[in-house]
Amino acid sequence: MTTQTTATEHPEHGEGGQYTTPGKEFTRDTTYITTRITTDGADGYPVEAGRYRLVAARACPWANRTIIVRRLLGLEDAISLGTPGPTHDADSWTFDLDPGDTDPVLGIAKLKEAYLKRFPDYSRGITVPAVVDERTGAVVTNDYAQITLDFSSQWREHHRDGAPELYPEHLREEIDEVNARVYSEVNNGVYRCGFAGSQLAYEQAYDRLWSALDWLEERLTHQRFLIGETITEADVRLFTTLVRFDAVYHGHFKCNRNKLAEMPALWGYARDLFQTPGFGDTIDFAQIKEHYYVVHTDINPTQIVPVGPDLSGWVSPHGREELGGRPFGDGSPPAPPREGEQVDPAHTPLR
Amino acid sequence: MTTQTTATEHPEHGEGGQYTTPGKEFTRDTTYITTRITTDGADGYPVEAGRYRLVAARACPWANRTIIVRRLLGLEDAISLGTPGPTHDADSWTFDLDPGDTDPVLGIAKLKEAYLKRFPDYSRGITVPAVVDERTGAVVTNDYAQITLDFSSQWREHHRDGAPELYPEHLREEIDEVNARVYSEVNNGVYRCGFAGSQLAYEQAYDRLWSALDWLEERLTHQRFLIGETITEADVRLFTTLVRFDAVYHGHFKCNRNKLAEMPALWGYARDLFQTPGFGDTIDFAQIKEHYYVVHTDINPTQIVPVGPDLSGWVSPHGREELGGRPFGDGSPPAPPREGEQVDPAHTPLR
Repeated sequence: MTTQTTATEHPEHGEGGQYTTPGKEFTRDTTYITTRITTDGADGYPVEAGRYRLVAARACPWANRTIIVRRLLGLEDAISLGTPGPTHDADSWTFDLDPGDTDPVLGIAKLKEAYLKRFPDYSRGITVPAVVDERTGAVVTNDYAQITLDFSSQWREHHRDGAPELYPEHLREEIDEVNARVYSEVNNGVYRCGFAGSQLAYEQAYDRLWSALDWLEERLTHQRFLIGETITEADVRLFTTLVRFDAVYHGHFKCNRNKLAEMPALWGYARDLFQTPGFGDTIDFAQIKEHYYVVHTDINPTQIVPVGPDLSGWVSPHGREELGGRPFGDGSPPAPPREGEQVDPAHTPLR
Repeated sequence: MTTQTTATEHPEHGEGGQYTTPGKEFTRDTTYITTRITTDGADGYPVEAGRYRLVAARACPWANRTIIVRRLLGLEDAISLGTPGPTHDADSWTFDLDPGDTDPVLGIAKLKEAYLKRFPDYSRGITVPAVVDERTGAVVTNDYAQITLDFSSQWREHHRDGAPELYPEHLREEIDEVNARVYSEVNNGVYRCGFAGSQLAYEQAYDRLWSALDWLEERLTHQRFLIGETITEADVRLFTTLVRFDAVYHGHFKCNRNKLAEMPALWGYARDLFQTPGFGDTIDFAQIKEHYYVVHTDINPTQIVPVGPDLSGWVSPHGREELGGRPFGDGSPPAPPREGEQVDPAHTPLR
C-alpha cells in the first residue's frame, strides 16, 4: 500500500493537478519539517561537509532561493545538489533529468522516498527544497525559509573566500521585516492570485499584490538593493519571484496590471541581480515555464506552454550602478557555475 | 425539439465551452449567410433606411468592425443597433443587457431566434455581427467581411456629411491585399494560437502571428495608417484585434512574445486610432475581457477574469501626428456616440 503524501494546498503539489478550491481563497500549508542542521548539532544533524544533499528543482521559486544562496556562499563542495525535473507527477517531484531517472547520489527516482525514509507515514506535501542526509537517504528538513538562513549562519566555516554577508547581525531586524512583507504579499501573493477559487478572492489578492509591488517600486527607485547598498537574503527572496513574473505569473496567475518590464525600478533591479553571478546563472526559464503550465492542469488544462516572453531584455543594460552600492560588500562575486551545474544554454538569455 | 445550432469550430461559439480540439490546429468555419443588402436589391434586400438592425456584441472583434464603420460613416439613423451581452450561453448570443433580457426592437431574447426565422434548420454557429430585417425578424446576413464593405459602397446615400472613404476604388487592390494577410495571420492568427490543440500547432501559430506583427511594426514605422495617409477599412480590421491584444490575446491566447505596448509603432498606431472618434468610443474593455475569459471554459475553466491590464496608456500621447496624414481625408470625424449607444464610462479609459 502506498502512503498518501499529497497535500492539496501546497502550491507545488496539488492533488491531480487541482490547485484551486472553488469559492475559496488560496491558503498555503505552511507546516514543514523544521529540523535544523546547525554547528552545534542540537537537532542531531551537525554541519558537516560532504554529508548533505540539497534537492532543489530549478523550476521552483522556493527551491531556487537555496540554489542561489549555495552559489553566492560557495557551498558547492560542502553540500551537493540534486535537481528534480520541472514537472512532478501526482505524488512527488521526480529525478527525471538524471540518467536512468534516478538521483545519482541518493539512488532514488522520487523525492518522496527520502521523505518516507524519515517519516514512514508522512502525509504532507512532497516539497522542494529538501535537504537529505546522504548517510541514511532521509530528509532532514524542507523548511525552505530556514535553510538559506542556516546556510549563511551555520555553515560559515565552509563559505568560500569572498562570500557575501547575506544575513548580517546588524541588519537582521530590517531583513526579517522586509522578508515578512515580501513573503506574504509577493512570494505567496502571486499564488494567491493564481489559485484563487473565486472572482472576489482573486480581486482581493490582486489588490494586495500590486500594493506591495508599488511599495517595492518606490523603495527601489532610490536604493540599489532592498536593504541598502549590498545584496542580502531579502534580495534573493524577492528575486526568485520577480524573475518568474513576466514568464509565468503575469499570464498564468493573472498578475497582469503590468509586466515587470513596465516597472522601471523593479525591472532595473531584477536585471541587475539577474546579471550578477549567482543569480541569473541559476535560472532555467524553460523549466520554470514547463513547471507551471504543465503541472497546474486546473488552470491550464491544455498544458500548452507559451513560447514567450522574449527574454532578451534580461541581459540589457540596467543602469543601476548609478545608484552606487557594492553588491558583495567586502566580498566578491562567485566563479561561474561548475561543470554539471550549468543551466542549459538554450534555456537562458545569458551568454 | 430544439434545433441544434452550435458549430464547434466557430471561434465565438464553441460547444459547451470547448474551443480546442486535442491534437489539432484550430480551423475556422468560414461559411456564412452571404445574402447582401445592396442598392439594387439583387438579393431581395435593398438598401432602405430604418429597415435593418445590426446585431453586434461589443465584446466580439468581428462585430466590433461593424460598430466602428457604422459610426465612422454616420449610419446610426439608417441602421439601428442591437447589442448582445458579452457572454453567450451554450447555443446563442443573448440580449441580456437589455431590459427584460429582450432586444427592444426584435423582441427576442436569443439571436438564434432570428437565424431560425430565416432558416428553420440552421445548423451552423450563431454568430455576430448579423444584420436582421426588422420587418420579418429574420437574419439577412452574418457575412462580417462583406457587411462593412457594403456599408461603405452600398449605403452611400445614407452616409453622414464628412463621412470618410474607407474603401475607395483606387485603393481597393491594396486594401484587399493587406486585409487578406491581416485576416489570415493576425485577426484569425490570435485564435490559432489560443485554440491550438497541441504544443506543435500552438508554436507554429505563434511564429506565424509574430512574423505578421513584425511586418506590421515595420510597415507602420514610416506611415501613419496601413494604406497610407488616411484611415481605411484595413485600419478598422487591424484595430479590433490590436485593441484586444494586451487585455486578452497576450495572456488568454498565449500570444506573449511581447505586449502590444512593447512595440512602438503598433502601440502608437493603435492609440492613435483609439483616440480617434469612432474607434475607441466603441470599445468596452470590461465586456471584451468577460467574453473571452468566461466563455472559453476549456482554456480558462475557473472563468476568473483578470483585473489587468492597466488601461491608462490607451489615452496617453501617441506622437503619430509627426508622420503627417489626414485621418479622415477630405472628410471629418464623427460626432460623439449618441445617447443609448455610449460605452459604460467604467469600462473605458476614455473621458
